Amino acid sequence: MKKKTGVCFPLGFKAAGINCGIKKEKKDLAAIISETDCIAEACSTTNRVKSYSLLWSLKNIKNPVRAILINSGNANVLGGRNGWEITCNIMEEFSKVIGVNSRHLLFASTGIIGKLLPEEKIISSLKTLVETASYFGGNDAAEAIMTTDRFPKQIEIETSIKTHRKSRFVHIGGMAKGAGMICPSMATMLAFITTDAAISRSALKDALRNAVNDSFNMITVDNDQSTNDFVVCFANGLAGNKTIQKDTRDFEEFSEGLSSACEFLAKKIAENGEGSDRLIEVKVDGAWSEKDARRIARKIAGSNLVKAAVTGAWPNWGRIAASAGSACTRFDPQAMKIFIGKYMVFDGFPCRIDETILRKELSKQQVSIRVSLNSGRASATAWGCNLTEQYVRINMEKE
Amino acid sequence: MKKKTGVCFPLGFKAAGINCGIKKEKKDLAAIISETDCIAEACSTTNRVKSYSLLWSLKNIKNPVRAILINSGNANVLGGRNGWEITCNIMEEFSKVIGVNSRHLLFASTGIIGKLLPEEKIISSLKTLVETASYFGGNDAAEAIMTTDRFPKQIEIETSIKTHRKSRFVHIGGMAKGAGMICPSMATMLAFITTDAAISRSALKDALRNAVNDSFNMITVDNDQSTNDFVVCFANGLAGNKTIQKDTRDFEEFSEGLSSACEFLAKKIAENGEGSDRLIEVKVDGAWSEKDARRIARKIAGSNLVKAAVTGAWPNWGRIAASAGSACTRFDPQAMKIFIGKYMVFDGFPCRIDETILRKELSKQQVSIRVSLNSGRASATAWGCNLTEQYVRINMEKE
Repeated sequence: MKKKTGVCFPLGFKAAGINCGIKKEKKDLAAIISETDCIAEACSTTNRVKSYSLLWSLKNIKNPVRAILINSGNANVLGGRNGWEITCNIMEEFSKVIGVNSRHLLFASTGIIGKLLPEEKIISSLKTLVETASYFGGNDAAEAIMTTDRFPKQIEIETSIKTHRKSRFVHIGGMAKGAGMICPSMATMLAFITTDAAISRSALKDALRNAVNDSFNMITVDNDQSTNDFVVCFANGLAGNKTIQKDTRDFEEFSEGLSSACEFLAKKIAENGEGSDRLIEVKVDGAWSEKDARRIARKIAGSNLVKAAVTGAWPNWGRIAASAGSACTRFDPQAMKIFIGKYMVFDGFPCRIDETILRKELSKQQVSIRVSLNSGRASATAWGCNLTEQYVRINMEKE
Repeated sequence: MKKKTGVCFPLGFKAAGINCGIKKEKKDLAAIISETDCIAEACSTTNRVKSYSLLWSLKNIKNPVRAILINSGNANVLGGRNGWEITCNIMEEFSKVIGVNSRHLLFASTGIIGKLLPEEKIISSLKTLVETASYFGGNDAAEAIMTTDRFPKQIEIETSIKTHRKSRFVHIGGMAKGAGMICPSMATMLAFITTDAAISRSALKDALRNAVNDSFNMITVDNDQSTNDFVVCFANGLAGNKTIQKDTRDFEEFSEGLSSACEFLAKKIAENGEGSDRLIEVKVDGAWSEKDARRIARKIAGSNLVKAAVTGAWPNWGRIAASAGSACTRFDPQAMKIFIGKYMVFDGFPCRIDETILRKELSKQQVSIRVSLNSGRASATAWGCNLTEQYVRINMEKE
């Protein structure tokens, strides 16, 4: 049975994913196309080096947006003198095929740095791509944006919005990729969120910023930051709800839905970290400030030593403590509590606890670490993955 | 033939290294003892969690110092409620054996976090330790402070200081350890420097700070920061030179010697990174500010992806570029040049260069990466090591 999954879940969004020849056989070219104009909001990499695709998108993001083209296998950055020209040629051709001015089109790329996009291969595939696009193409698109990802990542969320005392459903769908070069602000990843909600630009901006802050900005795979990070949310308003404005109850409902979608995808990205087989969730509470809590949580989730210990299921809480201490924030180490799973392992001083129990906790597919600082009331959660020999093998060589 | 190596190279310093039972067979307890009072200056970890040994030393560092006790195999941090008491007991006993008030003694520890020091084992070995101490004990001490280090690290430097128009030699000696948990400011490491130079406290402080800033603070193995980092320099004045004051030519000479000693030891630590078989030297020039240059150099030297690519001898300069871009500094990516060895691989755009040549460069024991930003005049050098599967194996389990 055909299903409207991922980005195709909300009303009026088609998607497609095909092979255009950047990769040998796997899908490498995707598109999301909306029936009607969308407002689009985005968060993107803070890396000084940015891909041409990202620069193109940032130029057009404030226009009404109709579609986005996405390729994998080539990051479209630092590839050569005519990288920008090639980008423009591709987008002009996409514009012709889709029948929409290129001002209304976005572009995103992921893959290896330093190679020009194969202009002709992509251009000659655009017609097929657009013709293939359907309301059931979410899965194909989610596959086409994968690089070293082990599985496609999609999410569908339905949330009810009260409109004139009658509740109406709005839908949020999304897909994401990301496996290496994953580090906070942003994690190296692409995420595409669609919604049929009618929402004001400023409300969408706020909702997305909050959602990204607590999700994609809180995952780390290897502390390396990409040149292509891009989270974009398209809203086409087809759900017919009364336009959502900031500081309303509708806004809260929508924000919650969007945050859930982003958290789901972010966790999937962390879980799918290169070479990893375990998701590490780090909760920090009792911090002086949210900034402190976030910093400590990310520091622990990103520590090579903590991550390697998780691989060996070695309950080395000393590394967790040292990692927390190195986050340049103030707290009293003796007032700190550390938990692995539900077991307290440190309470100012080491707790006596059976190591085999802790080893079991660290062997779970989702490993949970909690640090209570007992200094204040702020908290934060970060996600990472374990560090394995396979991570090194994957990143040593081209294939 | 017996040699005065490492910390024993300057006049008047004895050292010893023995096994006291923290480890099964390997040496695990060391001492450096000066014939006369020294002034001591130190740089230590900024980690919020600090070892009891470090706290002890920081308390006494401003006093005239006669000796330092060092143990490996146990970090003496977060081990239990009476960790501080045990530390004091050990130092009081060391004081009795050596015949010097404990106010004049320092302490340093390295090893696993979260275990109490074996008080009795250490105390019952102190007499032997002090009796064994000799002018030829440098190597024993350098061995006793090792943890997962593959080789002891020592340095001897002689430098001439002009005193009343007659030049006089002063000597600088040093030893260091460090293999994992190595990250800038400070790297997780211990370094002990001795000198027979007569020097004012403020001059020693400045010279050490400068030397550490360009050496130990510029190495990274795994971006994890220790609770025990400690660089300490002892000056006993036995060389008989006119006391070195700040802003003099003598100060320049001494500083240069001290900097060379620190750089040598720092590079040895990076080279000896856990599981690594290659030293990576990253030079950044043409940056707007020294802060920028330092940040970028450390970011590249610490990038898991760059380090894994070096292991595979894969000239993936895209990762170098992305890593530079992520350092939160301003530069124009198109004006950037990247060199691997002496070969330019990126000049605003990719350079055509035979991959086999680059693979050879990346297979050398010392891999050299240079990034020219062409933005300003500041430069910096950082050192790291490659990331291997063995690093993961070492850090997965206890043994």
